[in-house]
Amino acid sequence: MSHYDKHVFFCVNQRPAGEDCCNNHQAQAARDYVKDKVKQLGLSTDERTMRINSAGCLGRCELGPVLVVYPEAVWYTYVDQSDLDEIIEEHLKNGRVVERLKI
Amino acid sequence: MSHYDKHVFFCVNQRPAGEDCCNNHQAQAARDYVKDKVKQLGLSTDERTMRINSAGCLGRCELGPVLVVYPEAVWYTYVDQSDLDEIIEEHLKNGRVVERLKI
Repeated sequence: MSHYDKHVFFCVNQRPAGEDCCNNHQAQAARDYVKDKVKQLGLSTDERTMRINSAGCLGRCELGPVLVVYPEAVWYTYVDQSDLDEIIEEHLKNGRVVERLKI
Repeated sequence: MSHYDKHVFFCVNQRPAGEDCCNNHQAQAARDYVKDKVKQLGLSTDERTMRINSAGCLGRCELGPVLVVYPEAVWYTYVDQSDLDEIIEEHLKNGRVVERLKI
């Protein structure tokens, strides 16, 4: 059994100016948004724990910005807040993969 | 199927002076050591990919320093380089959980 039922890692890597990276797409802000929203919505409970983590480069820069949900190992890209809201509502809350954002 | 067969996250969080945290136990150096060793040993192949990541606080500070191996969701603590070598040899290379370091 996984310690966290949903353990989400956002790549928040910042490369030097000129090189593309997830944080050029506001990845840190996206992670903070999801972390706050999960808290507001009370999605992490004693029975169903959830953690929204920041991480270094996840190695899939060409598809970035990226995040991964473990233990199910589902990877997503996202563009804006509505994409993040859909991942929260569908995947984190209801356990349904968001196929249109999956990479 | 998981994009990485073994995706390892080291907590490398640094808290302000006085507060305990994984990086007070040289977590960043531990992550760099494992990343280099996995590369040297050629453990990440096209057939069996491996990634050794740094991450923010994984929320298990009292058991730190900690790392987690996904998708199997196996958590470890470690003290020194010989613990890391055992995790590399046993778990990452041979797929056997190191029970004595498991948390």
